[in-house]
Amino acid sequence: HIVTSLEAIESSHPPGPLEVSPSTTGPKKFFRDAWIRPEGGEGSSCVLSGGRVFEKAGVNISIVHGKLPTPAQKAMKSEHADIPISEKPIPFWATGLSIVIHPRNPHVPTIHLNIRYFELERDDGSDEPLAWWFGGGTDLTPSYLDTDDVKYFHKTLKSACDAHNTKYWPKFKDWCDKYFYIPHRQESRGVGGIFFDDLNTSSPLNGSAKPTQDELFDFVKTMSGAFLPAYLPIVLKNKDKAWTDEERRWQLLRRGRYVEFNLGYDRGTKFGLATPGARIESILMSLPETARWEYQSDMGKPGTKEGELIDVLKKPREWA
Amino acid sequence: HIVTSLEAIESSHPPGPLEVSPSTTGPKKFFRDAWIRPEGGEGSSCVLSGGRVFEKAGVNISIVHGKLPTPAQKAMKSEHADIPISEKPIPFWATGLSIVIHPRNPHVPTIHLNIRYFELERDDGSDEPLAWWFGGGTDLTPSYLDTDDVKYFHKTLKSACDAHNTKYWPKFKDWCDKYFYIPHRQESRGVGGIFFDDLNTSSPLNGSAKPTQDELFDFVKTMSGAFLPAYLPIVLKNKDKAWTDEERRWQLLRRGRYVEFNLGYDRGTKFGLATPGARIESILMSLPETARWEYQSDMGKPGTKEGELIDVLKKPREWA
Repeated sequence: HIVTSLEAIESSHPPGPLEVSPSTTGPKKFFRDAWIRPEGGEGSSCVLSGGRVFEKAGVNISIVHGKLPTPAQKAMKSEHADIPISEKPIPFWATGLSIVIHPRNPHVPTIHLNIRYFELERDDGSDEPLAWWFGGGTDLTPSYLDTDDVKYFHKTLKSACDAHNTKYWPKFKDWCDKYFYIPHRQESRGVGGIFFDDLNTSSPLNGSAKPTQDELFDFVKTMSGAFLPAYLPIVLKNKDKAWTDEERRWQLLRRGRYVEFNLGYDRGTKFGLATPGARIESILMSLPETARWEYQSDMGKPGTKEGELIDVLKKPREWA
Repeated sequence: HIVTSLEAIESSHPPGPLEVSPSTTGPKKFFRDAWIRPEGGEGSSCVLSGGRVFEKAGVNISIVHGKLPTPAQKAMKSEHADIPISEKPIPFWATGLSIVIHPRNPHVPTIHLNIRYFELERDDGSDEPLAWWFGGGTDLTPSYLDTDDVKYFHKTLKSACDAHNTKYWPKFKDWCDKYFYIPHRQESRGVGGIFFDDLNTSSPLNGSAKPTQDELFDFVKTMSGAFLPAYLPIVLKNKDKAWTDEERRWQLLRRGRYVEFNLGYDRGTKFGLATPGARIESILMSLPETARWEYQSDMGKPGTKEGELIDVLKKPREWA
């Protein structure tokens, strides 16, 4: 459904002078790729490259199981502090949906969504898992700040959260600002959204409510259902805007920061790279097609359009 | 001296149709930038961007001191296994020279050199350091394999090592292959060179020889002295070769791998990013101006020119 909606936008977008691929090649389609993990599991990756609207877009669904070696346990541990690190690999079962879209136009923000369910199994063959939880989130990463877009995005996510538990939005919004943060740059990756992890029946967040696993599953389904309504209007509003070489340069510099976060800090990426037999192509699907690094770049100074974005990245705001 | 030599090449290189900057802007010069670290220390960064020959080249000298917090101690610990991790910051003093050169032409390899001296100080005010060591290395990262160039590079480094201790070359060559390795890609970053760390009077490597600190300092000076003779002939030989869009695309894909190594595994980068007050611009100077990621790229297949390089990255060889 998500893939089809994105393809509809891509194919209705007229070829423009700024696109890289010759217009005669026609609109791009997603490359659909089902795969099997020899160590246990399977998945489906849909990737669109070199499109007119979407420079690189990936939708990845996976179901994997196997043994979690000690380094991968450690990569997971920082949030799940109550899970003991074992010298022995721990059996696990996980499923997830990941979407990352890097549009070509610098006025259309990058978006990311991830929804995952994780189970650690007991060694003794019992059906009751050692632990289980839901995690996920979605966040918006513009190169240029459009406050209306950011407000719309945050409000759409807030409504989706509020329908389940009014404690979720304030908690998950803050968590997102904290999670998608690049410490060495002292700035956020983007303008936020929501992030959550360790969501289970006994999460302190739920207080005495003790939602069932099904209720929590409904919540993460609502979250992934909010993806298209939260993002597509922003794409449609901005995709026909013209852009300059300088704006493209700034977008590529921002994508450099995206790479710094994903390779340096993102727990999912670190966890994936530390899991033997993990499918590298799927894990690194989130990286942009191109990124740029300049030494002491002159872009992003206070008082410029670029500096306006930096202000928000340095000091996240309430938008909803 | 190094900066001047690189500028001489840059300024003697005729403007060509493949360069990005208009030829009327003339050859690029290094931007020289002295800086002071508020937490203690100073340095000098020379960076050339957007040159005809050198797309991005950086030469960085630094002398820093301060307190090493626990995360930075851990980032350092993997090699220096005999250094205890302390809950308290440990005072340190360090000096180093770093060079990273990313040429524009895909037929001219990227090069990196680092030489560093590190001292951990005692808390009790005594002059005798808790520990000291030299570390460093230099390695070549081509996009296309030219076996003559690789042999020349390795032989030049071997001669420099052999002049000091014939045990150094075999040990440091292997260490380089092991260090500049990208586990999730199961390939080396480049075609190697030398890498060493923990070099001090009592290094097991020196056996009963017990070289003095001055003798080890002479060795690292020889190493940095070998940089220009080992690299410049390779630049001069290849810089006028023509290249295609496909060759440039492959070079940018390889630079993506360079970024993956530097942000994901390089100990120096991790150490720098974990050190409060570290100068981010200098640490990330090593990143290329542009890099590229494709999902399941069709480049690098066996039997192609690109696949020839991959063969060597998957299975390092003896060249000297």
